[in-house]
Amino acid sequence: MTAQLPGGFLSAGLHCGIKSDKAKNDLALFVSETPAVVAGVFTQNKVCGAPVVVSRERVTQSQARGVVINSGNANACTGDRGLKDAQWMTAQVAAHLKCEPAQMLVCSTGVIGHFLPKDKLEAGIPAVVEKLSATDEALEQGARGMMTTDTFPKLVSRKIEVGGTEVTITGVAKGAAMIAPNMATMLAVIMSDIQLNEQQTDLMLRHAVDRSFNCISVDGHMSTSDTVLFFNNGQSGVTLTTEEEEELLQQALNEVARELATAIIRDAEGAEHFITVDVMGMRTREEAYLIAKEISESALVKTAITGADPNWGRIVSAAGYAKVDFEEQDVTLFLNGTKIFEAGMPVEYDDAALSREIRDNREVHIELQMTLGEERVRFWTSDLTQEYVRLNSDYTT
Amino acid sequence: MTAQLPGGFLSAGLHCGIKSDKAKNDLALFVSETPAVVAGVFTQNKVCGAPVVVSRERVTQSQARGVVINSGNANACTGDRGLKDAQWMTAQVAAHLKCEPAQMLVCSTGVIGHFLPKDKLEAGIPAVVEKLSATDEALEQGARGMMTTDTFPKLVSRKIEVGGTEVTITGVAKGAAMIAPNMATMLAVIMSDIQLNEQQTDLMLRHAVDRSFNCISVDGHMSTSDTVLFFNNGQSGVTLTTEEEEELLQQALNEVARELATAIIRDAEGAEHFITVDVMGMRTREEAYLIAKEISESALVKTAITGADPNWGRIVSAAGYAKVDFEEQDVTLFLNGTKIFEAGMPVEYDDAALSREIRDNREVHIELQMTLGEERVRFWTSDLTQEYVRLNSDYTT
Repeated sequence: MTAQLPGGFLSAGLHCGIKSDKAKNDLALFVSETPAVVAGVFTQNKVCGAPVVVSRERVTQSQARGVVINSGNANACTGDRGLKDAQWMTAQVAAHLKCEPAQMLVCSTGVIGHFLPKDKLEAGIPAVVEKLSATDEALEQGARGMMTTDTFPKLVSRKIEVGGTEVTITGVAKGAAMIAPNMATMLAVIMSDIQLNEQQTDLMLRHAVDRSFNCISVDGHMSTSDTVLFFNNGQSGVTLTTEEEEELLQQALNEVARELATAIIRDAEGAEHFITVDVMGMRTREEAYLIAKEISESALVKTAITGADPNWGRIVSAAGYAKVDFEEQDVTLFLNGTKIFEAGMPVEYDDAALSREIRDNREVHIELQMTLGEERVRFWTSDLTQEYVRLNSDYTT
Repeated sequence: MTAQLPGGFLSAGLHCGIKSDKAKNDLALFVSETPAVVAGVFTQNKVCGAPVVVSRERVTQSQARGVVINSGNANACTGDRGLKDAQWMTAQVAAHLKCEPAQMLVCSTGVIGHFLPKDKLEAGIPAVVEKLSATDEALEQGARGMMTTDTFPKLVSRKIEVGGTEVTITGVAKGAAMIAPNMATMLAVIMSDIQLNEQQTDLMLRHAVDRSFNCISVDGHMSTSDTVLFFNNGQSGVTLTTEEEEELLQQALNEVARELATAIIRDAEGAEHFITVDVMGMRTREEAYLIAKEISESALVKTAITGADPNWGRIVSAAGYAKVDFEEQDVTLFLNGTKIFEAGMPVEYDDAALSREIRDNREVHIELQMTLGEERVRFWTSDLTQEYVRLNSDYTT
């Protein structure tokens, strides 16, 4: 994955000593040269990290210069001291950038219940500010600075033309892989040089997140630190004047978010299959979402896919406990394009051939078609393997 | 586990050919010699087996003679023909018992999406009626006739004295173990020779189920066939005349239900740890339940226990996404009696010693203490092991 920073954005990443492995970045900075309009979407968890508390409040001011991110320590469950440490981090960056601390946001990801190593950050922050640059390499170093157990950095760019001028939307993300005793997190930063007002920034981000980061699940365990930020600095001078242009930008933003979200699933711990779940023909999008989520989070559906087993009983029964009203005869199910359940009854199909295809292909497409309406949702998930269990139960004292 | 049938109840079990292994029973019958008052609690799944549809309707008549159960075939997702087959099963038994078909209930558990082998049942039903007996051996054979991947039959009796006369409450159950491509189920039949009216039978069963079968989870996947039945035939002549007597019976019924429910967890597929989750100090029982359920169903909590890892971060964050309002500082957490998190902050403890104890003991007690009220819930679950994944993804075409 490669990407370019939008106009007026800078990035950097380096190793400052939070992680023990010196080859791994643990500090990242994404900054706009001028104040940017910002919106954020945060974890709904009642137990959330100090950086979430700080950043959630600051995005309501809607103008920010950027975000500083450390990996290797989540600064969560750390009480008042954690809050002060998160504010201190932003103040350190702001002092070097010569802006207000309130204009800097902050994210942390890694082990929870430990205080931030301030000495390491105190040395690391001036160094990462010093390295800020607009190059592709600087962007990738920043993306690496967010990583915990990710095996590759996640970066996506889209360029669109609005009124004859090119606009860039670029996002970086890190994944929801978790290894004991750490708890990792989903973080994403999306930047654009378009000029949007606060309401546009917020609405467009929420629309994109609802169709991307809110439609992925590795194990259904909501982290304490999940954060998605969207910065617009207007450096391209481009504003949206027509509905068509707005739609064009929304589509590009959706693509960036979706590509980052699916990259997280492709990098899920121990995963052997990438699973796309489409639920169609529902009365409302919310109903489709509830069913898609239950199917995607069922351990029995996931282990069936691991075993290359076209087990429609597990899929249909997971739909059945999603607290959505329907009848068996409303349900038709396709697996990788093969119809295996129709209007509430099993159908004849070549079980061995379909199983072989799942085993070889590593991509699985579950399509549940209902007869209740026109609404649909797409969800992405990974299978559940012995390797996932090994990774997450591998603890030595 | 041993148990005795209450007065006036008969049981039998045998192999009639639904399962390929002749050593395994696949047909069971539990019958009262006289009509009994009955209540039932059934799966909430929108996709449910034909026997659930039939039995759910018949318990509303509140008088029944008993229940016929087959294992090896769930008669689920089988449409109108499945419904007719379930009714036919009860009619076959009723003809031999000389009662109305509507007085017989029915349960089926095993593979879904296949029609019942009526020829095998047609021969098996007269044979199982012929074998009906009040002996302990007959009860155990009946309990074995319900089993799918269970490794032991589950039977419990309690005897209490009411007004100088002994009353017996006896239950049998089968577990929620699942092996591809089968989907198994939780079934339980509880019988007593006490005399209860319809309302008492229904209320007492729901009270017991809410504190037992509704508080267990192996993988959070609700089956299409879950059924708990409670028969009272009044043969002891004993009625309840005081509140104390009512409480005594409720307590005995709760114990029977709880022992059967926890036996299901002890027999969960691949499980290495038996986990008890207590959530205390909540404003309502429902809030406590929501938190206990999220902790019990978190793959990350379960794999941490598998790895003997006292990972309070995973437990506290699972509580945080249960959609219950609380603050971090309301939370204190004990693991096997050791305080590891207090008022929202980590505390010092001997991590290595606690981990060793979890590894050696195989019993884990998670106690989450909130400061919000007096309500509490106890939940039981198993850990998530590589063996669970192996069993549920082991599919050969």
